[in-house]
Amino acid sequence: MIDFQPSFDGARVLITGGLGFIGSNLARRLAGLGAEITLVDSLIPDYGGNLFNIQGFEKRIQVNISDVRDSHSMQHHVRDKDYLFNLAGQTSHLDSMVNPVADLEINCLAQLSILEACRTCNPEIKIIFASTRQIYGRPSFLPVTEAHPLSPVDINGINKMAAEKYHLLYSDVYGMNATALRLTNTIGPRMRIKDARQTFVGIWIRQLLEGKPIQVWGGKQLRDFTDIEDAVDAFLAVAESPLTKGQAYNLGGSEVIALADLAKLMVEMNDGGDLAVCDFPADRRAIDIGDYYADFSKIRSDLGWTPKRRLPETIQSTLTYYREFLGHYL
Amino acid sequence: MIDFQPSFDGARVLITGGLGFIGSNLARRLAGLGAEITLVDSLIPDYGGNLFNIQGFEKRIQVNISDVRDSHSMQHHVRDKDYLFNLAGQTSHLDSMVNPVADLEINCLAQLSILEACRTCNPEIKIIFASTRQIYGRPSFLPVTEAHPLSPVDINGINKMAAEKYHLLYSDVYGMNATALRLTNTIGPRMRIKDARQTFVGIWIRQLLEGKPIQVWGGKQLRDFTDIEDAVDAFLAVAESPLTKGQAYNLGGSEVIALADLAKLMVEMNDGGDLAVCDFPADRRAIDIGDYYADFSKIRSDLGWTPKRRLPETIQSTLTYYREFLGHYL
Repeated sequence: MIDFQPSFDGARVLITGGLGFIGSNLARRLAGLGAEITLVDSLIPDYGGNLFNIQGFEKRIQVNISDVRDSHSMQHHVRDKDYLFNLAGQTSHLDSMVNPVADLEINCLAQLSILEACRTCNPEIKIIFASTRQIYGRPSFLPVTEAHPLSPVDINGINKMAAEKYHLLYSDVYGMNATALRLTNTIGPRMRIKDARQTFVGIWIRQLLEGKPIQVWGGKQLRDFTDIEDAVDAFLAVAESPLTKGQAYNLGGSEVIALADLAKLMVEMNDGGDLAVCDFPADRRAIDIGDYYADFSKIRSDLGWTPKRRLPETIQSTLTYYREFLGHYL
Repeated sequence: MIDFQPSFDGARVLITGGLGFIGSNLARRLAGLGAEITLVDSLIPDYGGNLFNIQGFEKRIQVNISDVRDSHSMQHHVRDKDYLFNLAGQTSHLDSMVNPVADLEINCLAQLSILEACRTCNPEIKIIFASTRQIYGRPSFLPVTEAHPLSPVDINGINKMAAEKYHLLYSDVYGMNATALRLTNTIGPRMRIKDARQTFVGIWIRQLLEGKPIQVWGGKQLRDFTDIEDAVDAFLAVAESPLTKGQAYNLGGSEVIALADLAKLMVEMNDGGDLAVCDFPADRRAIDIGDYYADFSKIRSDLGWTPKRRLPETIQSTLTYYREFLGHYL
């Protein structure tokens, strides 16, 4: 277990998308490590931001409600910070097809504004960008390494790919200190469960706790899952290491599982429930990526990061959380 | 020699960036083939649009001055067209680093608007997108095939990559008929020669004709060059073939040459002049791609396209043109 206290005690941290799933878990952990934290979040209704996510931490975390497209707000906030965890984003693949321009504004345009703000106001800041496995598209080999070709199958994937490349370009050309983490499905407390916009596991949790059958599309697709606490470990490890400048790293999970088996495991751990396997809707099938699981040997080799939580443990902690707090997430 | 007349006689054609270098040459050729042509061009001063480029064709070509970021104008123009040659773009690599947001607006945001306009108003239209070798970045092998990884080294390259991927995605997901041509240096009459924003060969032509030494940075970099008439052939061949839907094709040149040798050849063909080889300025070096030349066997195999004009012939026709019309390009 890495001791993150020396790196983050007293560190000045900015988290965009900080009221969202990963942002809020990261903020809570960083608060415990003694960091001075500012969150920026737009609270756009269909996105992941939720003030309840920082309940109990209100006095230790500075919250600024603004949109990352607001370049003046961002210019103000990036000054005098040591770290920027850049997590703001539109995450829904389907929404990106319905409204590609909004996806572009948030996932590309705002990212360029943030990078320009850092370059002009605080070029020394360490930036950790939340990228996604979606940029690979349909895997041509498994497990997927960072060298896999980037062939995204939806607008969201194309725009996230561009945004990741902006970050690494600013590192390369201007000598700035940026790193990208290519996330796979991340799950745990505080994820969006109202619908499938953040991860399909969210809506599954909701269906299970509301006594409805879990709707599984297809079901044979293989996937990997990162526990939120493991993801937070990865963000902190990448932030504190000088090795990570200009690099992109895959995260992965402790096991690979077919979606129907995941649904069964969730039903089992809930001591009740049901699942219904059905065909893909046409609009989803067109942008589905099939099987995916990551090779995470690069971050293991550079930083010693591995997923520590097993999937049943993750599901258990997630179910426990939402049994208690379901009403705050609907 | 392919006979393009049957495909384009009476065809309704829209060309974005139509007063620019490639757009205007394409328009003039299409007018000769009997097409009904509408050009859209913004005439942004630092870009390539120039009304003189269609001199003599004013009655056969409809000119609409508007910006591709103007989505209402685009929605109007894509209706009732058979072909869209989508050539509007910001082309300067250096400008894209100085003003990345403008590059994004024109090379990404406007492209999405155009595709959305086609999807909603005219999904049958055939779209040919002018992509660029810049999306490959620094070649990891030569000659560069279409399978080469995409690792652009400047904002312009990242944004053009995203735009190309939007086009191919709309083809893949919505069944639309889009094709990308990845251009290398294209040269010939009507290119921008005021500065190096479109191609460094432009400013070389100007320096030569104004009796100043050609400024060669580095000079050992290998490059290939496509004659404008060969490029126009490629656009027309791709447009009329059903094989090209959803594909990306490299264009290339009849020979590969080091930049210093190209400058010498230009001096020689001008019967006078001089060149000065000097070091790269730092801002240019950071985004230079080193040696590049394309493997164009895919388009040769699918469509029989090969570059027909040899480099000396291209330089000669270009010098002849600018000796006569220099004043219109300064």
